[in-house]
Amino acid sequence: MMSVETLAPPAAAPSVAGLPGLRLARSAAEMQPAVLLGLLARASHPEVISFALGMPDLELFPRQAFGEALAGVLRDDPLSLQYLTPLTALKAHVSTLMEQRTGRPVPESRIVLTAGAQQGMLLLVQMLLDPGGRVLLEEIVYEGIQMAVRGLSPEIVTVPTSSESGVDVEAVERAFKGPRRPAFVYLIPDGHNPLGASLSLEKRKRLAELARRYQVPIIEDDAYGHLYYDEEPLPPLVSLDDRWVFHLGSFSKILAPGLRLGWVVVPEELVPVVSGLKHAADLNTANFVQHATVRYLDGGTFEEHLRMLRRQYRRRRNAMCSALAAHLPPSVQWTVPKAGMFVWARLPDPLDAFEVVAEAIDRERVAFSPGRAFAAGGSSADPFLRISFANYSEDIIEEGVRRLGEVFRRVCSD
Amino acid sequence: MMSVETLAPPAAAPSVAGLPGLRLARSAAEMQPAVLLGLLARASHPEVISFALGMPDLELFPRQAFGEALAGVLRDDPLSLQYLTPLTALKAHVSTLMEQRTGRPVPESRIVLTAGAQQGMLLLVQMLLDPGGRVLLEEIVYEGIQMAVRGLSPEIVTVPTSSESGVDVEAVERAFKGPRRPAFVYLIPDGHNPLGASLSLEKRKRLAELARRYQVPIIEDDAYGHLYYDEEPLPPLVSLDDRWVFHLGSFSKILAPGLRLGWVVVPEELVPVVSGLKHAADLNTANFVQHATVRYLDGGTFEEHLRMLRRQYRRRRNAMCSALAAHLPPSVQWTVPKAGMFVWARLPDPLDAFEVVAEAIDRERVAFSPGRAFAAGGSSADPFLRISFANYSEDIIEEGVRRLGEVFRRVCSD
Repeated sequence: MMSVETLAPPAAAPSVAGLPGLRLARSAAEMQPAVLLGLLARASHPEVISFALGMPDLELFPRQAFGEALAGVLRDDPLSLQYLTPLTALKAHVSTLMEQRTGRPVPESRIVLTAGAQQGMLLLVQMLLDPGGRVLLEEIVYEGIQMAVRGLSPEIVTVPTSSESGVDVEAVERAFKGPRRPAFVYLIPDGHNPLGASLSLEKRKRLAELARRYQVPIIEDDAYGHLYYDEEPLPPLVSLDDRWVFHLGSFSKILAPGLRLGWVVVPEELVPVVSGLKHAADLNTANFVQHATVRYLDGGTFEEHLRMLRRQYRRRRNAMCSALAAHLPPSVQWTVPKAGMFVWARLPDPLDAFEVVAEAIDRERVAFSPGRAFAAGGSSADPFLRISFANYSEDIIEEGVRRLGEVFRRVCSD
Repeated sequence: MMSVETLAPPAAAPSVAGLPGLRLARSAAEMQPAVLLGLLARASHPEVISFALGMPDLELFPRQAFGEALAGVLRDDPLSLQYLTPLTALKAHVSTLMEQRTGRPVPESRIVLTAGAQQGMLLLVQMLLDPGGRVLLEEIVYEGIQMAVRGLSPEIVTVPTSSESGVDVEAVERAFKGPRRPAFVYLIPDGHNPLGASLSLEKRKRLAELARRYQVPIIEDDAYGHLYYDEEPLPPLVSLDDRWVFHLGSFSKILAPGLRLGWVVVPEELVPVVSGLKHAADLNTANFVQHATVRYLDGGTFEEHLRMLRRQYRRRRNAMCSALAAHLPPSVQWTVPKAGMFVWARLPDPLDAFEVVAEAIDRERVAFSPGRAFAAGGSSADPFLRISFANYSEDIIEEGVRRLGEVFRRVCSD
C-alpha cells in the first residue's frame, strides 16, 4: 500500500507556531477546540443558569448507596485497583439494561466496556473508517461524533434531519445506494442530541432494512434511550437488526458522567477487534469504578432509580416547555421532545445563536448551546440553539427561561 | 489530498468471517490480540506465581488514606461526578512530581492529564504520526507503543538496544539523518520496559541533542522514573530539552493502575492539540478519581510513600537477583536493573521463551513474559524473557525463581 505521506512533500506538512521544524500529523493540525468545551468554561459562573450542556442533575445521583459501594470495594477488594481485564459482572448488568431496551437478552459475549459512549464511538470509528473514507451524518448532529471522525480526515456526507421527525430516511437510502458507500451512518434514534427527536417505528424498520440491504453499518448512539417521558419507548435499532447495527450505551446520563462507564454492543465476531482497540487506547477503564458500579447495581435499586429519573426529567421537560410557551416571542420556534435532555429551538432569520449566546451570558446570566456546535460537514445551523432541561429544578428552569425571553425579545425586535 | 481509499479497490477491503459484506478499516483488520492480554488470563490461576506483568504490589497501596480521600470527595463534592474540565489542582501535584524528576518546576500550562500513560502515548502518536508514516523504535520495546501505532499502519524502523546500556544512540542518529525522518522515536530512559536498562548521562545528552539537531521529537516514557534503587537518578530527557522531548508520566506504578491517571508534558503550544485529542477520546478522565487523588496528595504523605516503594522494590530486586544467581543454570544470562520492575534474561539458543512459558505455567506454576511480546518491527526476541519482581514479597520471589530454575534446567539440558 502506498502511504499517504508519499503523496505530499514534507514541505507541506503542518507545523505549529513557536515550534519551527516540528511536523504534526495532518489530522492533528486540523484539530479545532471543541465549541462546547469553550462554553463549559464561560457558562460556569455561579450566577449563570446554564442550559448549555447535556448534564444530568447530580442531586439525583444515589450518592449514599454509591459511596457505600465504593468504600466497600476499597475495603474488601484492593485488587480492583490493579491492572485487570474488563469486569464480567458489569457486562452482566449491562446485559440486563440492554434487555430492558430491546426486550430480549443481549449476551455478554457481544458487549465491550468503554470509558463512556464517547470512547465507544471513537473505537467504532477506528474499526470502520479508513483515513479519508466517507461517513454519513445528519446535517445537525452531536459534536462528539464529529470529534471522533476528525482524526481520520473523512469526507463527511450529510442528510437532512429535523427536530420533529429526525433523520430523512429517503436521503439515507440515496447515500447508501450511491457509487461510494459510506463506512457507516451515525444515528441517535431516541432523544436525539441536539434535536430532541425520536424516530417513528416505520423509520426504525426502514433504517435497519437499509443497513442490511446496502451493507452499511449503523452506529446507534443510545445514551438517552432510558430517559423517555411519554408512551413506552420504541425498540432501538439494534433490536431490529443485530448484525448491522452497532450500539452505544452509557451510564453517564443515568448514573453519573464522572464514572466514565459506557459500553458497545457489536456482533460477537467483532468483539476481539473492539477489545483490541480499547486495550490500545487505555488498557482498561478504571477497574475499581467498574467494581463499585457492580456493587451498587447488585443492590437492586437501579430500576427504581431509573423510574425516578424519568419522573423528574419529565417534570422538568414539562416545566421547560410551559415556560418557553409563556416567555419566548412567537417568532422563536421549538419542539417538545419525547426523550432525552434537549429542546431544539430556532431564532427568526437572520439571527445567529452564536452571537446571541454571548449577550445572554453577559447581560442576562443565562446560557444555551448555539446550533453551530452541531452543524456537520459544512452545513449551517446558525439560527438554531439547544436548551437542556435536565440539570435544574423546575423553579430555576422557569427563571432561566424568563431570562431567555428577555434576550430573545430584545434581539428579535432589533 | 488523495485519500488512501482511492488507492485500493473496495474489493481488497478487509472483511470478517461471519459478517460477509462488512468492510473494516484496514488498520482494524490488522489488530492482533495483545500477547500480554492473553497471558494475563493464563497466569491468573491462584497457584501460579506470576512474574509476567508489570504490576505494582497493591499491598503497598495507601488503601486507608486513599479510601478516606474518596469517601470525602463523594461526601463533600458530588459535582466531581459531573462532566468537568481536567482538574487544575491535580496538574499542580503533577508539576511537583515533575520537579522531583527534573530539578525544576514544570508549569501546569505544559501538562495534559490522561487515562494512564497508555492513553498519553496514543494521543502523542495521533498528534505526530500520519497514516503510513515512519516511526523509530528500539528492536525490543514495550508492547503498548506497538499497540498505539498499529492503528496508523506505520513503517516501523528499529534500532538495536540492550539490557546493559539501552538504546544504540549511533543507530538513532543514522535513522534521524536518513532521507525520510521518522515522525518520532519512543524511548524509556529509566527502568526500561522490558529491558530494565537505564541510560547513561552521556547517552541522554546525546539523544536530546540529536532530537534538537534533526528536529525529530522524542516520546519519553517515564512510567518507572520514580522507582530507582541505587544512586540518585539521572535527569530525564525532558529536562535536557523541553522543546523536542514529549514526556509521559503515570500514577499507575507509584499509586495504582486502576486509577487510570497519567499525564503528558509537551511544549505549551501543543497543549491545545493534545487536549483536543484527549477530549475526542473520552471527554475527560473520571473526575472524581482526579479529585480523590488530589485529596490524597494534599495529605502530604506521598513523598514518604515513594520512599517506601523504592525501599520495598529495591529489596525485591535484590531478592530476585540473588535467587536468579542461586537457581538458574549458568547458560541463562540476565542483567541487574537499576530502576523499574523488570529483569531481562536470555535462554541459550535455540530456545524460544514463548514455548517455555506454557510448560512453566502448567508444570511448575510459575509465569513470565516471553520476549516475543516486545519484539518490534519484525525483529526477534524469541530467546528472551521478562521477569517482574515488583508484585511479590521476597519469600515468594525466592520460591518462584526456584520453580523457574526447575523449568530452565530441564529445557536447557534437553
